[in-house]
Amino acid sequence: METIKEIGGGVCAPKGFRAGGIYCGIKASSKKRDLALIYSEKPCVAKAMFTTNRVQSACVHISREHIAKGTLHGIIANSGNANACTGEAGLKAARRMAELAADLFALNPSHIAVASTGVIGVPLPISAIESSIEALGSSLHDGEAGHSAAYEAIMTTDTRKKEGAVEFDINGKTVRLGVMLKGAGMIHPNMATMLCFITSDAAITPDALDASLRATVKRTLNCVTVDGDTSTNDMVILMANGEAGNEAINVDSASYNIFTAALEKLCVKLSRALARDGEGATKLLSISVSGAKDDDAALMLAKSVAGSSLVKAAFFGADANWGRILCAMGYSGADFDPMQVDVIFASEGEEIKVCSKGASIEFSEDDAKRIISREEVDVIIKAGEGSGTGRAWGCDLTLDYVKINGSYRS
Amino acid sequence: METIKEIGGGVCAPKGFRAGGIYCGIKASSKKRDLALIYSEKPCVAKAMFTTNRVQSACVHISREHIAKGTLHGIIANSGNANACTGEAGLKAARRMAELAADLFALNPSHIAVASTGVIGVPLPISAIESSIEALGSSLHDGEAGHSAAYEAIMTTDTRKKEGAVEFDINGKTVRLGVMLKGAGMIHPNMATMLCFITSDAAITPDALDASLRATVKRTLNCVTVDGDTSTNDMVILMANGEAGNEAINVDSASYNIFTAALEKLCVKLSRALARDGEGATKLLSISVSGAKDDDAALMLAKSVAGSSLVKAAFFGADANWGRILCAMGYSGADFDPMQVDVIFASEGEEIKVCSKGASIEFSEDDAKRIISREEVDVIIKAGEGSGTGRAWGCDLTLDYVKINGSYRS
Repeated sequence: METIKEIGGGVCAPKGFRAGGIYCGIKASSKKRDLALIYSEKPCVAKAMFTTNRVQSACVHISREHIAKGTLHGIIANSGNANACTGEAGLKAARRMAELAADLFALNPSHIAVASTGVIGVPLPISAIESSIEALGSSLHDGEAGHSAAYEAIMTTDTRKKEGAVEFDINGKTVRLGVMLKGAGMIHPNMATMLCFITSDAAITPDALDASLRATVKRTLNCVTVDGDTSTNDMVILMANGEAGNEAINVDSASYNIFTAALEKLCVKLSRALARDGEGATKLLSISVSGAKDDDAALMLAKSVAGSSLVKAAFFGADANWGRILCAMGYSGADFDPMQVDVIFASEGEEIKVCSKGASIEFSEDDAKRIISREEVDVIIKAGEGSGTGRAWGCDLTLDYVKINGSYRS
Repeated sequence: METIKEIGGGVCAPKGFRAGGIYCGIKASSKKRDLALIYSEKPCVAKAMFTTNRVQSACVHISREHIAKGTLHGIIANSGNANACTGEAGLKAARRMAELAADLFALNPSHIAVASTGVIGVPLPISAIESSIEALGSSLHDGEAGHSAAYEAIMTTDTRKKEGAVEFDINGKTVRLGVMLKGAGMIHPNMATMLCFITSDAAITPDALDASLRATVKRTLNCVTVDGDTSTNDMVILMANGEAGNEAINVDSASYNIFTAALEKLCVKLSRALARDGEGATKLLSISVSGAKDDDAALMLAKSVAGSSLVKAAFFGADANWGRILCAMGYSGADFDPMQVDVIFASEGEEIKVCSKGASIEFSEDDAKRIISREEVDVIIKAGEGSGTGRAWGCDLTLDYVKINGSYRS
């Protein structure tokens, strides 16, 4: 395996990408940044995955339409308003967002993708965006100044910036991938998660880009759950401008595997960060299942455990109530034999087995409590039947989750 | 429709049923009642539905086996220990429970069903039950003294007794149905819900009893969700001893419809009570969907809304965030057109429309807040497409739910 190196930065790490973010007036109460732009002067091949929710934001409709045309120069995104359940006016507003950004660079509107996140069902104040579009254009920057301002402008209840970049070598050329991912609540991705924008300077064919994105999202972002609610606005967009000058990656080239490994490394990191920053979360739960009948069964088991309110609440209380883990596996829909299951809790190099062959064993409650009180806890499930493996990431269910979501609009 | 009259009482309301409950030593920390018995001297036809969780309590295995033989005299049930994930020893303990109760009346053990509720994964202290079985037999009583003590003995985090009884007439004979239902957390029934014991003095054929139970549970108990976790111990048992002296009800007789209507009336009442008493709940949410493509689609939509953590948290905060309702409909898996949906909140005779044709409309936030602050809130969803209807019941997601479940075993 080629070396994939983590480097600083985010979406501006790959050559030729700039980003920016400003306050335009949507987040009127906090006056925080609420409008972001990511831009590559060179045209990019672009692929995306969108929410499977039947109720879809106007931005999902418009971005799907634009990305289907194959070439993208940039993404305009706002926070504070999801532009979902907003009818024809919402579609018009989303189209207008693309047009405004495109006009800055004399592009066709279809070269711009649109993303929104925030409250559902409130008309998007498009005039605020219209009057600030020049300022948005002027905010574009390289490096830290660029991606950081853009990130701030897409945050809602996020408490941390979830960004990253990696670099690797393809036949002597240095290629980079950069990402920003936003999300904290209404997180139960299915095909895509929240707003996730990934840039690359790789030269890559559309087919290879698509295959790499789909394979990676299935194993990473689609394995995160915060609250079981699949959002109306989920999208992940991957765009690559070719500025690295490598020989174009195609599905059959050796470089495809390197590119996909780099993308997966980045997406694993971001998936963990997404779960850790789940609304109100005090800890990250990584559920790994091995020994399942097959990989699909392992994934179903891992996701079901990560999604259980009772499991999540027990971890909040650092209560080693492993019975709830077996219970959640039991209603996952996966085929397995409860009598073969071992459960181990691990953190910071310490581990403790709490269930063997589906039944209780003696263990020190104090040791278990110490281990699962930590900020990152691994739940290791050995299904004892086959060679299927799968992972999912989640977080605890806390008093703060309820507080945040009892008054989100207030 | 024949008159179905609510009467006082619970499982002892039908002729020939007695019940009792004692403390035997399982709930050692609280010393509350933890062992219950329901008994009919006359043999009963009996049918049951059990959890679909793949991880099933020993009591589910044993009760399924016993009820398959067709005749029941009683049910022995304990709280404080679920006897789930307890391996071979758990199965042995469940068998022993049935045997101990059967010995009291010189019956075959298969004439007794067994139920347990409480913590998963802890060995059941069967010796505590052995040494108290005579006292349990002596605790049997008619009427209030009986059903009330039995109910106390199956409570865990329940804060209210969920019981009821109805009476109706079949060809001049008075027939009664009585019920007790226990449950507050790990409630997302699928085929059956928690522990629910229903008695009747009706004469009825096994086929009619089975058909009536399945049809009713589908429309009532299986439409309740508290936290999305389908338990390992769910069961509903319906037993009828024929003491009313009516001509036996069969699937084709007119009396079948009366019996089923009475059973449904009782189960609707209990379903509402179950949701209202959800762990930590401050309010009951009744979700009704009309105008869906068909009844199945309506049920999927209603259940998805009732189960959404974000919808539940919004109601806790009395935040009229109807966009989350549309979002939960969107990921329900049901086929519908978001652009046709109206959403109305109602309580105590007042109602307010908050969404029309899938988009926002002007409404008074103050009025909406007043209505949804009440203890029972109706969410009325008009899908605007067909004639399908469906209902589901749930509750809000509160700080207390997290507190209760962060330290359930402590």
